[in-house]
Amino acid sequence: MITASSTDPLLLRVARGEQAERTPVWLMRQAGRYMADFRKFSDTIPFRERSETASIAIELSLQPWNAFQPDGVIMFSDILTPLPALGIEFDVIKGKGPRIDAPIRDMDAVRRLNPMEDPALKLPFVGETLRTLRQEVDGQATLLGFIGTPWTLAAYTIEGKAERNCRATKTMMMKQPQILHALLGHLTHALADYVVYQIDSGAQVVQLFDSWAHHLSPDQFEEFSLPYAEKVMESVRARRPGVPLIFHANGGAGKHELLKLSTADVIGLDWECSMKNARAVIGSDRTLQGNVDPTVLFGDEKVITAAVEKCLKEAGPRRHILNVGHGVIEGTPEESVGIFCDLARKSASLFQTA
Amino acid sequence: MITASSTDPLLLRVARGEQAERTPVWLMRQAGRYMADFRKFSDTIPFRERSETASIAIELSLQPWNAFQPDGVIMFSDILTPLPALGIEFDVIKGKGPRIDAPIRDMDAVRRLNPMEDPALKLPFVGETLRTLRQEVDGQATLLGFIGTPWTLAAYTIEGKAERNCRATKTMMMKQPQILHALLGHLTHALADYVVYQIDSGAQVVQLFDSWAHHLSPDQFEEFSLPYAEKVMESVRARRPGVPLIFHANGGAGKHELLKLSTADVIGLDWECSMKNARAVIGSDRTLQGNVDPTVLFGDEKVITAAVEKCLKEAGPRRHILNVGHGVIEGTPEESVGIFCDLARKSASLFQTA
Repeated sequence: MITASSTDPLLLRVARGEQAERTPVWLMRQAGRYMADFRKFSDTIPFRERSETASIAIELSLQPWNAFQPDGVIMFSDILTPLPALGIEFDVIKGKGPRIDAPIRDMDAVRRLNPMEDPALKLPFVGETLRTLRQEVDGQATLLGFIGTPWTLAAYTIEGKAERNCRATKTMMMKQPQILHALLGHLTHALADYVVYQIDSGAQVVQLFDSWAHHLSPDQFEEFSLPYAEKVMESVRARRPGVPLIFHANGGAGKHELLKLSTADVIGLDWECSMKNARAVIGSDRTLQGNVDPTVLFGDEKVITAAVEKCLKEAGPRRHILNVGHGVIEGTPEESVGIFCDLARKSASLFQTA
Repeated sequence: MITASSTDPLLLRVARGEQAERTPVWLMRQAGRYMADFRKFSDTIPFRERSETASIAIELSLQPWNAFQPDGVIMFSDILTPLPALGIEFDVIKGKGPRIDAPIRDMDAVRRLNPMEDPALKLPFVGETLRTLRQEVDGQATLLGFIGTPWTLAAYTIEGKAERNCRATKTMMMKQPQILHALLGHLTHALADYVVYQIDSGAQVVQLFDSWAHHLSPDQFEEFSLPYAEKVMESVRARRPGVPLIFHANGGAGKHELLKLSTADVIGLDWECSMKNARAVIGSDRTLQGNVDPTVLFGDEKVITAAVEKCLKEAGPRRHILNVGHGVIEGTPEESVGIFCDLARKSASLFQTA
């Protein structure tokens, strides 16, 4: 039996690539509308107020921790949260998603953006949330911070709202790629500073969400997303070495050969690929995170167990963080999330030899 | 220089796997709102009327043929068109997409479905459209018919409308898979009859659109989509041998190993994978179709040429049908479609050795 190699929490050790006593687990969109306790807040408090008020963000971050004891606690926030610090105001319309008042569409708009400068001044609630969570969780789980990648935030700020084909952004990519590159460059610097701030406030692992990578062909991903995410990671590593970074791309199934080239400590996988193939392409020397289809959580314990055990086995006993391949869906029974976490806690038994 | 091996049109010969004088081309959603001539109809005639009136469907099918002379002419129709023949009524709401009045949600509803029986009686406009198109095109291009796959039509009829997570269908899959399998079985028989009718009416190649395959993990695709599509193809081949069948799955990037197992003559690729990887996994002995990102058509001739030539080179001089990886997007300049088709006509020069 393998025992803990240090006093660091399990998920942090596995993110670093260490051999561990079992597979750790957390779930994307861990705090969310599938929880009745969450809906008490979301039904009454506007989106930005609940993600930008530390006391509320702390409470919401801890709800799933208190209910399911996952190995990772992720701060409740949004990938768009840092945008107002750069001069990009946004709101979230219930049932419709984010709206940016003044989408960024030309070079002048890019030039007018503010630098991040001091995140502690502009986004103090993020620091307060992380500092308090680190104390509350008290080493019993790993505290995760996160950002949206430069590509994903660029596409949001150009579109101004979710758009099926990302048409404004893709048109800019085809006609005026220099504007897109300038915006990506600006976001890269700002996001690196924001990650450093999250680490200094207590985040032990930071995930880069490339939520809109599915809008990119592999060639476009190689030019417009991966290099900027790499620059963020390089800048963070130079200033705060040793903090594991997770890169998760939605729509990554056709991009595994490129993801393999990433320097991220952990590669997050969506559920549109098999863990087996991802492991074969990306290799056994990288920690993989994922990748159960979240709709499996609508099934009974037998259905959930079959899907999770297949994922665990295909990933192998080392270098795997169990997760869903996309956020938990509204309407998911809360007890399913408990079953999911319990299966990770029992994962060592799957790999015991007779 | 290779010359035509028979009097059959180019695309048909390449779909069969024959060596040919150049790469053929057509575009998905070839007739559509990107064309001003199309909008004259779509702005005034309701969706079902224009897809179920032979004279209009013929006119719309021929618009891109007259404008761009692609190597394939696909009948203007919809994947939902056969559903009313089975007792499933639908309408298409402008700007919102299809709506099915009574979604199929239980075993009784599946049992009440009609068999296809005689498509010539129930869907005579499809036969008339194909017969006329075959005459009009007169061997200068290949006439394509199409269907939605059993999975895609099952998901549509269970959801009743586009739903982000396909939640009703996936819940049924997790909780009552026997109902889903019964519905898939019913659709499989009906669709095989419908394909045979399309062939008898003049279709020289038939494409199976698995438009909602992105809602399936590879395991789910292997259980709920691929085997039913295979049964359709097997039934068609037994009755009308020698007609090439194309299988196109949206969200196929993580499913190439499974697509390789398909017996389809042609595998259609979406644009979220690289043609190079698809060719490596699926092999050089299968005709591949695709897979240029349709947003490339918003770029200038240089941008379009670079993307198309990369695709052509990665696919190789044999067994490739040039296409976009997803339907042409509204707002696409018409001249871009012309440039796209011209590049296929010049494709032989790419492969000439000094």
